[in-house]
Amino acid sequence: MKIGILGASGVVGRQMLECLEERKIIPEELRLFGYSSVGQKISFNNKEYIVEKPDFTGLDVVFGAVGATEAKSYIEDIRKAGALFIDNSSAFRYEDDVPLVIPEINGEDVYKHHGIIANPNCSTIIALMAIKAINELSPIKSMIASTYQAVSGAGIKGFKELDLETREYARDEEIINHGGFEHQIVFNVLAKIGNYTDDEYTKEEMKMELEGRKIMHLPELNVTCTCVRVPVLRSHSISISLNTKDHLELAAVKEALKHSEGVRYLELPDYPMPLETSGQDIVHVGRVRKDRVFENGIALFCCGDQVRKGAASNAVQILEYYLKHQK
Amino acid sequence: MKIGILGASGVVGRQMLECLEERKIIPEELRLFGYSSVGQKISFNNKEYIVEKPDFTGLDVVFGAVGATEAKSYIEDIRKAGALFIDNSSAFRYEDDVPLVIPEINGEDVYKHHGIIANPNCSTIIALMAIKAINELSPIKSMIASTYQAVSGAGIKGFKELDLETREYARDEEIINHGGFEHQIVFNVLAKIGNYTDDEYTKEEMKMELEGRKIMHLPELNVTCTCVRVPVLRSHSISISLNTKDHLELAAVKEALKHSEGVRYLELPDYPMPLETSGQDIVHVGRVRKDRVFENGIALFCCGDQVRKGAASNAVQILEYYLKHQK
Repeated sequence: MKIGILGASGVVGRQMLECLEERKIIPEELRLFGYSSVGQKISFNNKEYIVEKPDFTGLDVVFGAVGATEAKSYIEDIRKAGALFIDNSSAFRYEDDVPLVIPEINGEDVYKHHGIIANPNCSTIIALMAIKAINELSPIKSMIASTYQAVSGAGIKGFKELDLETREYARDEEIINHGGFEHQIVFNVLAKIGNYTDDEYTKEEMKMELEGRKIMHLPELNVTCTCVRVPVLRSHSISISLNTKDHLELAAVKEALKHSEGVRYLELPDYPMPLETSGQDIVHVGRVRKDRVFENGIALFCCGDQVRKGAASNAVQILEYYLKHQK
Repeated sequence: MKIGILGASGVVGRQMLECLEERKIIPEELRLFGYSSVGQKISFNNKEYIVEKPDFTGLDVVFGAVGATEAKSYIEDIRKAGALFIDNSSAFRYEDDVPLVIPEINGEDVYKHHGIIANPNCSTIIALMAIKAINELSPIKSMIASTYQAVSGAGIKGFKELDLETREYARDEEIINHGGFEHQIVFNVLAKIGNYTDDEYTKEEMKMELEGRKIMHLPELNVTCTCVRVPVLRSHSISISLNTKDHLELAAVKEALKHSEGVRYLELPDYPMPLETSGQDIVHVGRVRKDRVFENGIALFCCGDQVRKGAASNAVQILEYYLKHQK
């Protein structure tokens, strides 16, 4: 198989390479694409590769690890080359003929593709992985979520910003904004990720509902989400209250979570922490209890590495699922 | 008036002194009490005071800035001295004959006291200040809240822990746990504040419902709260979704918030940040929008300084209200 990675030098692109290697998906041919990083050397499977200008000729699969605008600008070239595009951006997620896939939840949707398979938003993947076992017991009707999102969700510049500001504080210097975020991030939280929509949610917040409906095949799911950036280097955390169609016993919910693929259920007194979920693919779920507001409510707290399961690993798993189950 | 402060050398005790001075409540006699800090010098209104062992004889008012166990151990002595005890701890908050007061919401309750007036929990004060104008438009039936609580909520040791860990990171050293929290706090979030109750909430989480019911005189209020410590030095933030009895127009809610005492309403694109609310008494409220789950739902995000309005200032305001409105 011949694989290309668009945006190979970014946080997600590099993580995709690591995930391919870990999962022993060693392509017959690998090509790394970028713009400002053209000429950079990146190693994969003990071999050095040089980042080139995008040219998809002859490729079977292209992973997209760039923004929505860039993904859109290259889609025609990828189509012409006849390659399958597994795209991490939000560019095509809501198009009817583009499957939006978390393999553990709706893996079979991959076969509905017409050249593009979209990888969901990082917080959506982590939240949905946490609740999928509950949704299998009884469909989720509604959900209220507040996120605690790490700076790595904003790419390398987000990581650098927190690092630089932290070092300034420790040197007892004035904390300067280096352009990573709208406002200081060290010792602060920013309740705005992405642009505002007309109804005053942010685009990031609406993804949880729009993508959740499509992935879980729940067209009537309602989600209120508040997305907040916190001074954490890596791994997103999410506080969730959800309401299911039927009444569920708390013990049954916990039992289902214990056996949920890709999930680690933490019993009290333990609870999920972003520090513990970083650098691996499992989503940690804990603080599972009866919600005090919803009729059939469950409250929980979850954490997952948004660069890995929230982005790169999920994209690589999509390919893996596609190859393994190919009809 | 003769005032004593129990726990005067702690974060809240020192802030009480600052608030008394700012609000020009200069007592005829001031006595500062502590245990391990006995002998320490603390200045107030250009005069130096020495922390003594507790002895409440002759005092009119004692402010409590100690934990629940300590508050309980001194209550008999305070009663014997005939002083009014304005207690910041959770020791007496749920007792029927102890008013639990946020002056802007239920100031009149102070007159129901029998020697003790309790100051609510910090997150409760900030959340209730944010929603009180909405509750005046239509009673709040239920609420789902996730907190982003600063380390100063854990006192000086919480502040020191984050400071030390931050400096270790910046020196590229191993980050050590100095005992301030159960786990590392820098670049991490801890979804557990206080001990667990039998139904797997934490005591801190249950305060929002139990205290909210008492302060707002809403005995049927249901609250699901998830309390999370974040690496912020000062000021708590809270993401809230609430359901009111009647349908409210979003414009009417915003208008009410604009005129709400002790509140600053932030219009988009601005949003509340803990960094901006630190060192002052006003609670910032923003990101106000229609909740997508509740029938009559409003979602919002708020921040407030939990050492000030969340503790010391509110206690001093209780005294101020008591004196000003004395019958």
